[in-house]
Amino acid sequence: MLIFLGVVPLQKIIFMHSIGDYQKLFSAHLESLSLPEQPERLFEPIRYILKLGGKRMRPVLSLMASEACGGSAQDALAAATSVELFHNFSLIHDDIMDAADLRRGQATVHKKWDSNTGILSGDALLVISYQQLNHYNKDLFQSLTQLFSQTALEVCIGQQMDMDFELQTEVVMDDYLEMIRLKTAVLLGCSLQMGALAGGGSDQTAQHLYDFGVHLGMAFQLQDDYLDAFGDPKTFGKKVGGDIVENKKTILYHLALQYATPEQRVELLDLMSQNPADEAKKIEKVKTLYVQTSADKKTQQQVALFTQKAMNSLDQTQLESQAYQHMKAFARDLMHRTQ
Amino acid sequence: MLIFLGVVPLQKIIFMHSIGDYQKLFSAHLESLSLPEQPERLFEPIRYILKLGGKRMRPVLSLMASEACGGSAQDALAAATSVELFHNFSLIHDDIMDAADLRRGQATVHKKWDSNTGILSGDALLVISYQQLNHYNKDLFQSLTQLFSQTALEVCIGQQMDMDFELQTEVVMDDYLEMIRLKTAVLLGCSLQMGALAGGGSDQTAQHLYDFGVHLGMAFQLQDDYLDAFGDPKTFGKKVGGDIVENKKTILYHLALQYATPEQRVELLDLMSQNPADEAKKIEKVKTLYVQTSADKKTQQQVALFTQKAMNSLDQTQLESQAYQHMKAFARDLMHRTQ
Repeated sequence: MLIFLGVVPLQKIIFMHSIGDYQKLFSAHLESLSLPEQPERLFEPIRYILKLGGKRMRPVLSLMASEACGGSAQDALAAATSVELFHNFSLIHDDIMDAADLRRGQATVHKKWDSNTGILSGDALLVISYQQLNHYNKDLFQSLTQLFSQTALEVCIGQQMDMDFELQTEVVMDDYLEMIRLKTAVLLGCSLQMGALAGGGSDQTAQHLYDFGVHLGMAFQLQDDYLDAFGDPKTFGKKVGGDIVENKKTILYHLALQYATPEQRVELLDLMSQNPADEAKKIEKVKTLYVQTSADKKTQQQVALFTQKAMNSLDQTQLESQAYQHMKAFARDLMHRTQ
Repeated sequence: MLIFLGVVPLQKIIFMHSIGDYQKLFSAHLESLSLPEQPERLFEPIRYILKLGGKRMRPVLSLMASEACGGSAQDALAAATSVELFHNFSLIHDDIMDAADLRRGQATVHKKWDSNTGILSGDALLVISYQQLNHYNKDLFQSLTQLFSQTALEVCIGQQMDMDFELQTEVVMDDYLEMIRLKTAVLLGCSLQMGALAGGGSDQTAQHLYDFGVHLGMAFQLQDDYLDAFGDPKTFGKKVGGDIVENKKTILYHLALQYATPEQRVELLDLMSQNPADEAKKIEKVKTLYVQTSADKKTQQQVALFTQKAMNSLDQTQLESQAYQHMKAFARDLMHRTQ
């Protein structure tokens, strides 16, 4: 449903028909982003990581939220760019901290250049992500920037919790959920809230959309953990069992430990501290433990719970528009994905 | 001269009498800064670096600028905190990039903890430095935040240029001056401009104070390079000749190369690529070359030039107040310091 509010500027009649449309609009905008040429070593890594692509999930949420609130997708382009640049800043620095060699199948920034280049170009990218919001008038600038800062700090806290948890044997589920809320989910909430505000939505609607995003982000991340172990190898994009091979302490691991018998506990702790040559065998054994302890079912229950919470928050917005339908479809697609 | 504009809130009658007063006011404010307790590994490094102290030059400039413009020092406390936190963020990350072990005689953050801790707590500190500006109303918030972002990006560019220059044999003076303008001077300008705006100064006055700060910062940094080689060992705080020992390419080095005879050039390049056991002999030889090529005098000329430019900018503000006198004295003290 097209909503016309008073005089509609020409650009507002460009209306999005599918999620692909939002992605295209955003990609074109991102490509038009003008970065200084010099110093090359500061800005080339930024251009590089932005060209690695990705689903652009966060900016798409911003654009949809703006339209859902009666604004145009264009109204939210600067906010969408802000969150996407922030996301990429966090990838550059996280990859250094995780000593990751690959990102989307390509060398990570600190691998292609070095750690110092990753640190400094990441810093610059964080500042540039703030600068995107300069586009807005002072009222919006204030509310968007303050929300952005709060979210950015939460993401740092989430990343620290994640690194801390890697050094702990056990983490109770609530703490684990709080970690993924901060590390992953709040940025999805922020993307939606910023888009809603940029599109002229009320504070209340923007808050409901924030909640929708946070719950969706939780469901998404838990689903990610689940699919990594139990996804269909035919449709799952990455190697199934990658987290198990890397001894990653996912929600499955923590739930399994919590509900394991003493024997299962010893076996799981033992398996997840090894790096055996026969990866397939290790994956199989750990998955069996995940099933025996019902960690798999409990994880799916959490996914369902957060998906339901997300849908409830979306319903509370009482929005009725094509963009609202897009958001609902987007959430459903995200949760029923097999990769 | 005390300036009363309309109804003056009680706090405005607290008036600063010396630079030490500004430092005390700021230190008390910084100590009252509330940071989350958890995660400890994210916030403890921030508390640590803030406790290492320092001259608090940047925040003092903000407070003085506010008073000079008819506001109170208190009006600028949040802006002053913002620049001081940003400065400390840049120290944490620069120390990682420079592999520096010591900062103000104590272990650097990445030495006391590790690089990852330095990267992430630095990131958090950058965000927290932005959040200090949340204190201001939307008009000030917008102008201060946008100035802050611009300056922050310039500082990143300056740091990159500095790292690039370390890999180059020769750098022409104008490029070197541009590097120190971005890496060091603009943050002093920003401190003053933000203080001026927070204190109710006009855009024009704030701009003149920005220029004053940038020129002062240039003079300060060039003086730093000069004193490192030619300071009086009795009064100079650090070891005289430290830059020479570390083969650091300062303004003295670049000017000496530019004006050297072919023989002197070969000798300087040779000396500054060695790490001999007899440091004193190396220092003596390099200093002789700096004198023979007049690099010492040319550096002093640049210091005098930028000091004069700074004073001219200050005069253009046409401010007349005790705080203005403080700023003038501050600039003089800074330039006539022997350490």
